[in-house]
Amino acid sequence: MTWTTDNQKNLMLFSGRAHPELAEAVAEELGIKVTPQTARDFANGELFVRFEESVRGSDAFVLQSCPYPMNQWVMEALIMIDALKRGSAKRISVILPFYPYARQDKKHRGREPISARLIADLLKTAGADRIITVDLHTDQIQGFFDGPVDHMHALGQLAQYVCDNYGTDNVTVVSPDSGRVRVAEKWADALNGAPLAFIHKTRDPLVPNQVKSNRVVGEVEGRTCVLIDDMIDTGGTIAGAVRVLKDAGAGDVIIATTHGVFSDPAAERLANCGAKEVIATDTLPIPPEKRFENLTVLSIAPLLAQTIREVFENGSVTSLFDGSA
Amino acid sequence: MTWTTDNQKNLMLFSGRAHPELAEAVAEELGIKVTPQTARDFANGELFVRFEESVRGSDAFVLQSCPYPMNQWVMEALIMIDALKRGSAKRISVILPFYPYARQDKKHRGREPISARLIADLLKTAGADRIITVDLHTDQIQGFFDGPVDHMHALGQLAQYVCDNYGTDNVTVVSPDSGRVRVAEKWADALNGAPLAFIHKTRDPLVPNQVKSNRVVGEVEGRTCVLIDDMIDTGGTIAGAVRVLKDAGAGDVIIATTHGVFSDPAAERLANCGAKEVIATDTLPIPPEKRFENLTVLSIAPLLAQTIREVFENGSVTSLFDGSA
Amino acid sequence: MTWTTDNQKNLMLFSGRAHPELAEAVAEELGIKVTPQTARDFANGELFVRFEESVRGSDAFVLQSCPYPMNQWVMEALIMIDALKRGSAKRISVILPFYPYARQDKKHRGREPISARLIADLLKTAGADRIITVDLHTDQIQGFFDGPVDHMHALGQLAQYVCDNYGTDNVTVVSPDSGRVRVAEKWADALNGAPLAFIHKTRDPLVPNQVKSNRVVGEVEGRTCVLIDDMIDTGGTIAGAVRVLKDAGAGDVIIATTHGVFSDPAAERLANCGAKEVIATDTLPIPPEKRFENLTVLSIAPLLAQTIREVFENGSVTSLFDGSA
Amino acid sequence: MTWTTDNQKNLMLFSGRAHPELAEAVAEELGIKVTPQTARDFANGELFVRFEESVRGSDAFVLQSCPYPMNQWVMEALIMIDALKRGSAKRISVILPFYPYARQDKKHRGREPISARLIADLLKTAGADRIITVDLHTDQIQGFFDGPVDHMHALGQLAQYVCDNYGTDNVTVVSPDSGRVRVAEKWADALNGAPLAFIHKTRDPLVPNQVKSNRVVGEVEGRTCVLIDDMIDTGGTIAGAVRVLKDAGAGDVIIATTHGVFSDPAAERLANCGAKEVIATDTLPIPPEKRFENLTVLSIAPLLAQTIREVFENGSVTSLFDGSA
Amino acid sequence: MTWTTDNQKNLMLFSGRAHPELAEAVAEELGIKVTPQTARDFANGELFVRFEESVRGSDAFVLQSCPYPMNQWVMEALIMIDALKRGSAKRISVILPFYPYARQDKKHRGREPISARLIADLLKTAGADRIITVDLHTDQIQGFFDGPVDHMHALGQLAQYVCDNYGTDNVTVVSPDSGRVRVAEKWADALNGAPLAFIHKTRDPLVPNQVKSNRVVGEVEGRTCVLIDDMIDTGGTIAGAVRVLKDAGAGDVIIATTHGVFSDPAAERLANCGAKEVIATDTLPIPPEKRFENLTVLSIAPLLAQTIREVFENGSVTSLFDGSA
Amino acid sequence: MTWTTDNQKNLMLFSGRAHPELAEAVAEELGIKVTPQTARDFANGELFVRFEESVRGSDAFVLQSCPYPMNQWVMEALIMIDALKRGSAKRISVILPFYPYARQDKKHRGREPISARLIADLLKTAGADRIITVDLHTDQIQGFFDGPVDHMHALGQLAQYVCDNYGTDNVTVVSPDSGRVRVAEKWADALNGAPLAFIHKTRDPLVPNQVKSNRVVGEVEGRTCVLIDDMIDTGGTIAGAVRVLKDAGAGDVIIATTHGVFSDPAAERLANCGAKEVIATDTLPIPPEKRFENLTVLSIAPLLAQTIREVFENGSVTSLFDGSA
Repeated sequence: MTWTTDNQKNLMLFSGRAHPELAEAVAEELGIKVTPQTARDFANGELFVRFEESVRGSDAFVLQSCPYPMNQWVMEALIMIDALKRGSAKRISVILPFYPYARQDKKHRGREPISARLIADLLKTAGADRIITVDLHTDQIQGFFDGPVDHMHALGQLAQYVCDNYGTDNVTVVSPDSGRVRVAEKWADALNGAPLAFIHKTRDPLVPNQVKSNRVVGEVEGRTCVLIDDMIDTGGTIAGAVRVLKDAGAGDVIIATTHGVFSDPAAERLANCGAKEVIATDTLPIPPEKRFENLTVLSIAPLLAQTIREVFENGSVTSLFDGSA
Repeated sequence: MTWTTDNQKNLMLFSGRAHPELAEAVAEELGIKVTPQTARDFANGELFVRFEESVRGSDAFVLQSCPYPMNQWVMEALIMIDALKRGSAKRISVILPFYPYARQDKKHRGREPISARLIADLLKTAGADRIITVDLHTDQIQGFFDGPVDHMHALGQLAQYVCDNYGTDNVTVVSPDSGRVRVAEKWADALNGAPLAFIHKTRDPLVPNQVKSNRVVGEVEGRTCVLIDDMIDTGGTIAGAVRVLKDAGAGDVIIATTHGVFSDPAAERLANCGAKEVIATDTLPIPPEKRFENLTVLSIAPLLAQTIREVFENGSVTSLFDGSA
Repeated sequence: MTWTTDNQKNLMLFSGRAHPELAEAVAEELGIKVTPQTARDFANGELFVRFEESVRGSDAFVLQSCPYPMNQWVMEALIMIDALKRGSAKRISVILPFYPYARQDKKHRGREPISARLIADLLKTAGADRIITVDLHTDQIQGFFDGPVDHMHALGQLAQYVCDNYGTDNVTVVSPDSGRVRVAEKWADALNGAPLAFIHKTRDPLVPNQVKSNRVVGEVEGRTCVLIDDMIDTGGTIAGAVRVLKDAGAGDVIIATTHGVFSDPAAERLANCGAKEVIATDTLPIPPEKRFENLTVLSIAPLLAQTIREVFENGSVTSLFDGSA
Repeated sequence: MTWTTDNQKNLMLFSGRAHPELAEAVAEELGIKVTPQTARDFANGELFVRFEESVRGSDAFVLQSCPYPMNQWVMEALIMIDALKRGSAKRISVILPFYPYARQDKKHRGREPISARLIADLLKTAGADRIITVDLHTDQIQGFFDGPVDHMHALGQLAQYVCDNYGTDNVTVVSPDSGRVRVAEKWADALNGAPLAFIHKTRDPLVPNQVKSNRVVGEVEGRTCVLIDDMIDTGGTIAGAVRVLKDAGAGDVIIATTHGVFSDPAAERLANCGAKEVIATDTLPIPPEKRFENLTVLSIAPLLAQTIREVFENGSVTSLFDGSA
Repeated sequence: MTWTTDNQKNLMLFSGRAHPELAEAVAEELGIKVTPQTARDFANGELFVRFEESVRGSDAFVLQSCPYPMNQWVMEALIMIDALKRGSAKRISVILPFYPYARQDKKHRGREPISARLIADLLKTAGADRIITVDLHTDQIQGFFDGPVDHMHALGQLAQYVCDNYGTDNVTVVSPDSGRVRVAEKWADALNGAPLAFIHKTRDPLVPNQVKSNRVVGEVEGRTCVLIDDMIDTGGTIAGAVRVLKDAGAGDVIIATTHGVFSDPAAERLANCGAKEVIATDTLPIPPEKRFENLTVLSIAPLLAQTIREVFENGSVTSLFDGSA
Repeated sequence: MTWTTDNQKNLMLFSGRAHPELAEAVAEELGIKVTPQTARDFANGELFVRFEESVRGSDAFVLQSCPYPMNQWVMEALIMIDALKRGSAKRISVILPFYPYARQDKKHRGREPISARLIADLLKTAGADRIITVDLHTDQIQGFFDGPVDHMHALGQLAQYVCDNYGTDNVTVVSPDSGRVRVAEKWADALNGAPLAFIHKTRDPLVPNQVKSNRVVGEVEGRTCVLIDDMIDTGGTIAGAVRVLKDAGAGDVIIATTHGVFSDPAAERLANCGAKEVIATDTLPIPPEKRFENLTVLSIAPLLAQTIREVFENGSVTSLFDGSA
């Protein structure tokens, strides 16, 4: 007397307007289409989104990269999630290739926000069930979200590129500051046990927050230095690090980063800082005006597509990274 | 053996960067200072806020107006609230003179967001205990927030100005569309029982969302028409309404609105639409380039200051409006 | 080694005791049976409900209409939802053909409840995942619920009946007050662009809340007036509106409403108010003693059944209304 | 530069319409007035409440007894709490002298609600911070509320009356069923270590839920039996127990209960059941038509007033009961 | 264009380390394997758990018994649930054969915790969707959890054993205190309507919490007494009850309990207390050092396996108990 | 007519049983007494707590250190918080000098818990309003709690001791692994700009998680090495680091840590590892059997007392650390 049906589910991919090329590339990898939507900006900055197909019961994946102007894209993602929730999507996974406000992950001093946690809570409130992201600024941000976080790593892809192009024999991995040494150590493992170095900034105790000098800790003389960072914003720190390395007698300096934020004047700085090559992924859009001669961009789309497939089919995401997540 | 103190509380006023002049004016009315803060924009659009004085135990009022670019200011308000919550403010009241996304207060069609509810939830999640706002697009938005909403009205101030300058004898109150007639009726009551009219838009059933014609319903010939609206954005609708009224033989047309959004090309449209005067409040900043000759701006600061005082001292906000809230 | 099954789901329909005929009609449309239950009233007014079949894993739809005594039926719905939640229903959709407390959707004055929001929160707390309802008093009530609201409209059905029986040539749509003009405009669009009118109530500023006079705004002389409202309770306002229209020279007056609350003395008033016909749906039970000669009742069951089917099968509810929801 | 005030708080007492006499009696004990309010019933059963004085910042106590029609009064309490929350009361304590739906405190069988927990959640959702109640059906209901529950006991008052009027020498305390023996034991302790008995109901295993016989377990012959229960509804069980006791040779039978629900035909049953006296408190209103000759009603108002005072002044409620709560 | 799959689900069973034999027995009944995991204790007492197979999308059942040291096992269960939630299990059911802190289900006096409610909230917070448990100390604990609780009963199994071995003719069911008489009555029904008795403890009003004497209420002389309790911890109360029964002339005394906590010196006490046989289930591990000659242990594994099967396949758990749950 | 009182608040300090000496020391600094309580362990490991004075309206501070057996103490803290919440404490701050499960602050691999976040959620659920803690394993843990976290630092105290006893001229700060270099940099700043070094562990890519070799990165030959870590558990890593430093030609090695967990065999290892002195605070109890000759313990009590005072009096905690928190 009751009415029974098989409980099928269907994957739908939605894209914010921040980086549509990446969504298209992911869709192509998956062999599907990005769901068409109407998105508008009102004159006073309000956004509006409406999906052109029924989303009822779908397993929805919302891809939003968060370049400048970041708050615009964060709010667009929240509004899309709200529309999916109210439109009866069954499960909502948000793909943030670059997690917004990741650098504000703790109170450095009193009366500060922890905006990275706030972002996680806002996503939850809007209706997100899961976050998929790449190379968080710190791994602990996973714990900011009350739900599953699938944390992807671009290191494998980047390190492979370095191996293929520079070998590992004469390579030293360099962290641009004391906070990234642990990540540099992972790189060192990936580069066949290469040695490590980092830049030590000393501060003047009488002048708050002012760096007095930069010293290289570790051996870099004559070495090919792979200078790594999770993101490069205006490029000031990393360009400075190249200079310090060169002053310390380093050989070629290669810069590798997951997130190429490349805010002005990053392109100019990186082009002229003395680095031989800068390698980044396209977790953020890198439009022509941000590109420069010695920049190499690797596509993150295959990794995201593979992750979506595993999540949708309840496979193992962990297996994509040999067990580490 | 226990340690006991009087439980004093102190009022602190915080201002987002969207409309600092209004915060200063409110502070002056209250005889206090806006709490100094550090606020920065990072190159990729991330915001950062830090308060320069301890906020521990304070009764905090955060004033943020939300003009263009709205999402920037919404996020700044959320981040300020987060910093106050983590900095141990005792109670956090958010003053939004212009409630963001108020027009998206329902699903007009399927698969749409209800962004006005989302905003209320985001504020709650960040840590807001109370909202203070002025002339919501619809009164029901009060119910979107899970907590007290103090809803101020500028009608008294605006209507008094109209009375003082135009009398009420020959006045007809006009709603620019069918959805504001109820508000127009409140104006009519305030203007000594003036008659009502509104603009009726007919739609072509064969072409979705297309308006076929505008008719005036009600008598306007030879009357001084007070054309009212809660907000004026680009001014297209309201300028069109002036034209329809003039075509119908109206005398002078006065436009009165609480929220002067005045997105481009509102200034030009309003200056040239044939209206004798446009009256607005400063719930939103109206910089020189948005101003025009026949514009009159009334200050909302005294009303906000009075409300803050009543909230802080546990007086009655209702009494500010003769019982209606 | 693990145990895998297809994840089937089955539709179960539950009915509160307020309007069992409607539930039966809906079940018949769907070709299913209402799930049998034991429901009892204890002497002191407590309710008890127990389902006679396992509800584990079901896609449960609880239909409860809310006529007088409304609080009884609201509580019965909450208790049924609680029993379903604790009995492991997979998803719980509540069908409220007439949303309770819809008129209390804002604070008219200070220190008032917003009971329509309260009802949404109570339903959520009890365990409701979704609300299905018909013609909310204001559309914004959708935003009171933290989850999907499927908002049905009876306008199409009612307007079709008017067209079939009265044509549209000489018809004017009339709103009984200033707050319903927007809805009247939708009717006008549905009735081939018919003209609009409304009743303007003026208030005496010296006597709070007292209406001084009622004027018709718009042309009604000699016209067939379709007087519309979302609900008719005791019928005082609507009967008064008929009188005002007749005094203004209107021809036939037809009353159309979705929700026939018809509290005493509505039947007598409506029968004798001079209206030619009163058209309502059966979102609320209309027992014989509430019926009168010129009353026509259209059944809402097909619309509800179709909605349940779309929700169960993850189809599009929006498509039932040409895109508007 | 900041504005500081002493953080005073003021007690306000609010009364639902179920039992205004009790609220008045409590107010008198405290030397205050019940806050005036407007409360209305709409024709379709909707309730409306509005407070006539500002409640901003108050320490609010809402007293609502829940006699028949219980759902009406539960909803009124919820709506009052909502209005207080939105009206900015500082803390909301709900006084439920008789906790509604207390008997539905567990699932007796599958697919049943646990309405007593539901009530606790509804109160929390509406905005209640604390519950004050008297003699819960089971003590575990305290744990249903996510917040402080001040649980009062009338036993001291009732037992003192029994001592004063019947002494304790020849007294046996009798539980009317197997579930109240623990409470009877507390009575026995209060009555100077009086012996215990209870009525054992045997059920026919072939006929579900049917009681086959009632046996007295324990010695009652020639003893003055104090038959106790937390509440008496229609009086069937308790009158039956008197009969069983008389059949077993008991002397005088005195009935003592906290909650005199006294639904029809309790008055008649209790008057004629053979009990010498029935003692109850006024946690519920007992109007003249429910009263009968051998009924004694003790006022609970002093206990409630004392509790409110301790809660308001942060004293110890536990101390009112020699440590047990 | 969208990607659709059948939404299969798979059952996975996880076991805490408190009682692995029970999990193995349950798995064997179901014909599955317990999911392998890594579990470690760090030197300072921190626990760590990691599952060795993907749990994504699984219908996860976590079995954790809670013997001494209970807090260790509670925390392990919470951590396993957290790992499942973050590992994207679809639904998480926690099987607690012995519900922890069940005795702290109310405030006996002021300023006490209600730890049984706290446990329910902690489980919910960690991510549990459902609880499966056996013979709660009080039925009301079901209401402490905000979600479905499947409450199993061992009474059928235990009573059947008593019938088979002792018949029912000369049997009296005895509750060891006044609070268990209701449960004893259920036993009496199961034992063919056997008579009831209980031990009445009188307290000295001048010395708080001190028991003055124990009297048997009901006839036990020459009867085979089945002394029942939900759990036996150190065995002091139950051994004392045997002595009181023997003093009152009872024949054989049989002790039956669901939860054999058997903390030291229970084994010694029970072996020597004069009871003919002690019957318990293995909801808790009973290692050799806790066993004694006249102890009979019945396995709860078949009941748990059957429940898991019904829950997984959306069958009826109620039906396992002839309607009572 | 209303009743008004000054809203005083009083500080009450509560202590778990893990480290009563620390609570006594803090109380003495504050000039108050630890509130007396009854705390019991039941035979099966259940805990029970009851406060012996009314806690109603208090500003409660619960101090619980979390040494072995950690889960016991975590649960005791949760139960104390529950009792305070239900006993109507006004605000509950939990002081965890050593944050439990801090090392599990992220998923190192898939299907792991994030127990540090779980702990924060459990505390919130039990009723904690605020956390006060010392030297979190990673600063991001602040963001795991949904509320204010006052994060104290022992670095100032420890570094001052090093300066006073060893000067800063010949000192190098050494991080025992790549993850603590940022903290070592803060030490270097505090020690007058001392140089940095760290131990680089290389892993064999063919054998997961196995360290192949340890190299010192940075200059340590002939230097006084201050080897720092936030906590020392069994001492294996740190003792190994001393050996590596000695092998690299280091002069004296001083070990400084905030949290002396000192699980077996830490005392033996540290005594014999070659370090000249080990400096720790008493955030955890260090009983005689864990002490050894070259161990120096500094008291954290003054810092905790000062923090409590600032929190209670709404002063600035930030000011205790020159702005960093």
